[in-house]
Order: sequence, then C-alpha cells, then structure tokens
Amino acid sequence: MASQIVPKTCKVILADTIAKGLLAEVKETLKTVQQDTEGKPTLAAFLANGDPAAAKYAEWSKKTCEENGFNFDLRQMDKEQLEEEIMAANEDSKVDGIIVYYPIFPGNPAHDKYIQETVSLLRDVEGLCHKHIYNMYHNVRFLDPPHNQKKSLLPCTPLAVVKILEYLQIYNSILPSGNRLFGKTITVINRSEVNGRPLAALLANDGATVYSVDLTGVQIFTRGQGIKQPRHQVQDKEGWGLEQCLPISDVVIGGVPSEKFKVPTELIRDGAVCINFSSYKNFDGPAVKEKASIYVPSVGKVTIAVLLRNLVRLIANRPSMNPDGTVDEAQVKAKSEAFMDG
Amino acid sequence: MASQIVPKTCKVILADTIAKGLLAEVKETLKTVQQDTEGKPTLAAFLANGDPAAAKYAEWSKKTCEENGFNFDLRQMDKEQLEEEIMAANEDSKVDGIIVYYPIFPGNPAHDKYIQETVSLLRDVEGLCHKHIYNMYHNVRFLDPPHNQKKSLLPCTPLAVVKILEYLQIYNSILPSGNRLFGKTITVINRSEVNGRPLAALLANDGATVYSVDLTGVQIFTRGQGIKQPRHQVQDKEGWGLEQCLPISDVVIGGVPSEKFKVPTELIRDGAVCINFSSYKNFDGPAVKEKASIYVPSVGKVTIAVLLRNLVRLIANRPSMNPDGTVDEAQVKAKSEAFMDG
Repeated sequence: MASQIVPKTCKVILADTIAKGLLAEVKETLKTVQQDTEGKPTLAAFLANGDPAAAKYAEWSKKTCEENGFNFDLRQMDKEQLEEEIMAANEDSKVDGIIVYYPIFPGNPAHDKYIQETVSLLRDVEGLCHKHIYNMYHNVRFLDPPHNQKKSLLPCTPLAVVKILEYLQIYNSILPSGNRLFGKTITVINRSEVNGRPLAALLANDGATVYSVDLTGVQIFTRGQGIKQPRHQVQDKEGWGLEQCLPISDVVIGGVPSEKFKVPTELIRDGAVCINFSSYKNFDGPAVKEKASIYVPSVGKVTIAVLLRNLVRLIANRPSMNPDGTVDEAQVKAKSEAFMDG
Repeated sequence: MASQIVPKTCKVILADTIAKGLLAEVKETLKTVQQDTEGKPTLAAFLANGDPAAAKYAEWSKKTCEENGFNFDLRQMDKEQLEEEIMAANEDSKVDGIIVYYPIFPGNPAHDKYIQETVSLLRDVEGLCHKHIYNMYHNVRFLDPPHNQKKSLLPCTPLAVVKILEYLQIYNSILPSGNRLFGKTITVINRSEVNGRPLAALLANDGATVYSVDLTGVQIFTRGQGIKQPRHQVQDKEGWGLEQCLPISDVVIGGVPSEKFKVPTELIRDGAVCINFSSYKNFDGPAVKEKASIYVPSVGKVTIAVLLRNLVRLIANRPSMNPDGTVDEAQVKAKSEAFMDG
C-alpha cells in the first residue's frame, strides 16, 4: 500500500456478499444430511394477511429458494382458515418447514403468538415456537441435552445479525464458542419481541455488554463481570438514553420501524460498526460513512439465507433411518456436525 | 457446547504459539526469495556490553536461528572495538543482517544511537537506522517509492506486538490494510524510544486511538476523526492518567521495565485484551484472568521470530541477479510479494 494515499475509511458491506457465503454453506450441508432418495426440501409459506410487503418478501424468498435447490410453496388463504391449514402442514411429510407472514391480527399480538404455537417444533423454521425462544433466552443451544445432537433454532432476523457480526469478525474466533463477543459493547435500538429483545439476549449470551434501547428507556443485558453467569441478565438503566449508550458502543444496531428515526451520527464512537436491520434507513448514510469503520445498510438477504439454513437444520434434527428401518450412522454423524460452529 | 458449563472466560495465549506460525512463514518465504546457490543466511550478533541478560537472549536467538535454517554468528568484543567491527561486517557479503545488544554506553543514549547509525541500512535487521525509524513514524511503508518493492523494516519488539494483535484478530482483516485498527482504543504503558513510542505510533498509524502513558503523563496518538490523516499526530492529555485511559481501552499493553509496577486490574475494562512486553510481569496474572478476554503474558519468542522475518525481508530487498549478471525476474516478483500483507 502506498503511504500517501488514504484509503476510504468506512467499509460498506452489502448483505448480498454475506448471504452468498451462507447459501454456499447451506447447499453443502444439505448434501451431507440428506439421503440420495430424498428430493428437494419444501418450505411452505402461509400468507393470510394480504400485506403487499409480505407478498414481496415471499417473492424474494421464492427466488432464493429455487436458485438454491429448495421448493417454495406459497399458500394464500383467509386468516380464519390459517390455523387448520398449518395443522395439516404439520402432519404433511412433504412439508419440511413452515413460515407464516406476520402480523396477521394487528392490534392483537397475543393472537399472532397463538398462531406461532400452532406450528410444530419439527417444522418451525422461523424459530418462533416457545421451546425455541425459551432456549434462546436461556442460552440453551440444544433440544436434546445431554446428547446435544439436535440444535435449537434461532429466530431469523436476530440470527442474521449474528451471522453478519461473525462475518465482520466482531465475533473473535480466538475465544471459545459461546464467549466470542466478550469485551464488546453493543447498542441495539429496538426491543420488539420478534427482533430487538431476542437479538439483545443472543448477543449478551455470547459475551457482549448490550444496551437495549427503545422509547421506554434503556436496559443493559450482560453476563456480568468476567461473563461468569451462564446466561444474560437484564437491568434497567434509569436516566440513560442514546447519549449515554452510543459513545461507548463498538457496534450500533438500528432496527426502528420508522422513516423518521435516525441514529444521531454525532453520538456514534469514531470507528464504530453500524448495522441497520430496519426496512427503513436508520442511519444517515453519507454522514455515518465519515465516522464508522464498517457500515451494513440492510440485512434482508442474509435473513432469507438464514431461513434456508434453519430449514436444513430442521432436516438435520430428524431421525436418520435407512429405508429398511435401521439407523444410518454416517448420516447421524453428518447431522450432528451440521452448522456446529454457530 | 453444553449450556450450563461456563468455559474459562480468559484465553491465555503464549508467545510460543504465535512464534511458531511466524517462523513457518519465514521459512517458506526464505525459499521463494533465495536462489538455489545461496547458502543459509547469516545473522551476525555483536555483544560488547558483557550483559548476562543479553548473552542469554543471544543464546535463545542462536537456538531459534539454527532450528530454522539460519546461521547465528556471535561476536564478542570490547565496546571500543565495536564500531570498526560493525563497519567491517557491513561490507562482508557473508553477513546478511547485524544485531547489536544495547545498551552499550549506559547513561549515554546518544552514543548508543550513534552506534545504531553505523549499521548499514542493508544489514539493519533490527529496524533501528534513522531511515527505517523515520519511515515508521511517517507511515511510509517502502524504501523505494514509487516502485514500492522494498519494504521498510520495523523495530522488532513493536512489530512483535503488531503480529500478536494480528493473531488475536484485533486487527480486523475486513478493513483495508493500513486501517485495520480503526475503532480500537489501546493503552501502551511505556514511551521509550526503543519500544513504547514506536509501538504507539505504529498502532495509531494503523488506525487505533492510542493512549501512550509513562511517568511524565499521557499522550494521545491518533489519525483523527474518521482517521482522515495519513499518519498519526500526538497531543498531550493534561491531567490524564491510567484512571482515565484504562476503563476505555479495548487493549492494554504493559512494557514497564520494573518489578514493582503492576497495571491496576480494577481499572481494566471487562473483556479487555492484555499484553505484557516487559521482561517483568506488568499484570497480576490471576486477577487479570478474572477480567480480561485474552491475556498474553510475554512476547520474547515472537520478537525473535520477527527478527528472522526482518532478516528475510533484508534479503528480499536486495537486487535479484543471476550469476551471469542478468535480472532474475521470477525472483524479483517473489521478493516484491514477500510478507506483503504486513
């Protein structure tokens, strides 16, 4: 490198770049966990809310599925039929995973939550069933302790952010798995049950000190000094706001679903890593590029890649039987090793 | 990993582990930059101060040299003969690099500095000649701009710390070379001309915000907001001490040559990376392991590996002639690519 040329100081990383690597890994792993006689896996997608944004997302998902060797079966229906349709798909051996587009009952999140629970744990590619969510919050990585061969699934958008942080080497692979964010301070702006709160918990479980910020205030998620606790604990930070959190954060993650909200660039630490998972632009792009070391403007393509990763993980969690009913030991091994690094 | 087992939260990394990787790279690179007719490279070491610690270090260096395909030629003499002996070695085609054990004239550092300048730039394996030091402070990476095929050498202990930080992934390889510490805050305790000041400058030139601390106070070394400056600038931090620097530092580097000095563990940020380059233990080992994410208790073996790396770099900086006087183009290419990543 020439000494007098100053390279651009903010590296912009597009979701597409990260998604490509994940999809390659997904395809490779699928080969190892399927038997030759098994056909393409099928993701059944339930659209019952007539939301054009969801229809658009479904279209993207279909394209990604088909390009990567998966069937995508979009099923549109009235919301009153949805529960019965999901129950039928739970029992259908031709369906490998189920995705439902939310919200279905706006203003009634408990009803949406009820629908999430109707999806069988064996088909829950979104990681939204209570058992999956419980395990995530409690830092329990497997469904079958003490055998630990069936991984518990993580919800797609939070896992997408984790995969992005791994790609960006914010996870330090020198440290043991499960502690690789030790020493990192991260602010997550959004504390929704679907995205922000699980994300804050995941990052804190991996060792980070996380400030979770929403309109009601700031909470700190942490495993404590020396990350001695096995999972995160949460405390309110009375009187705190972005003014206190941002200047001390190595990573700033925006997920505010509003066109108006912008992260105040002047509060961001010089050289911070900035990631936006909102469908709106939470950062002032040109300004943040003058200050951040890395900027990831969107995560959508990574989320879809992670959806397929979860689907392969569901397949790997199924018993490995030969057609004659005996256990396929080679496949048991391949399945237990699938995605074991994260 | 099982969820209920808390793995040890501080990873202790020994210099030996890092040195092995560097030595393997040194041996590989030596093969590519030497012609078949050339024998083992020779490092001539001048011991003129009768210091038993230096003799011990020389013994270690000899062992590492011989294990890795280098000759180590220890020359002991009276300090009054040293200058003439160095001048002779400068002209000796059988000597590839020269190392001198300092201090030779204790209480008269300018005399030692004079001796450093008597070593030819072509033999200066320690990176202590003024041209090498000047380039380091000015973030000039090559001796032959604009061709940029001959790398300027860096002093061994500071470069050893850089190589350790690369191994620990504190340098983020996602960022462009030359900016890979952008966003990191580092405290270096020691500001000697041989180690602490060059180290602070190197780290700041690579993008870090560095607090350089010694008995006289604190200075900040930085390329400014958005690391827009091509090289670091230095400012005094009036009234600052370790109380201000340590709680905001991702990395703490101790280099205080005193048995009594200990970095106050209670000031270190939870999850910080702690590195000791002093021959004394600057950290309270058991206490720091309860708080740091990574602890490197010593660097000596990495320093010796870096010495051999510099020797190969000197060989790569020489013209590539065939025995018939023509230019060996393949070797020109190999030499220009040697250690180009850092």
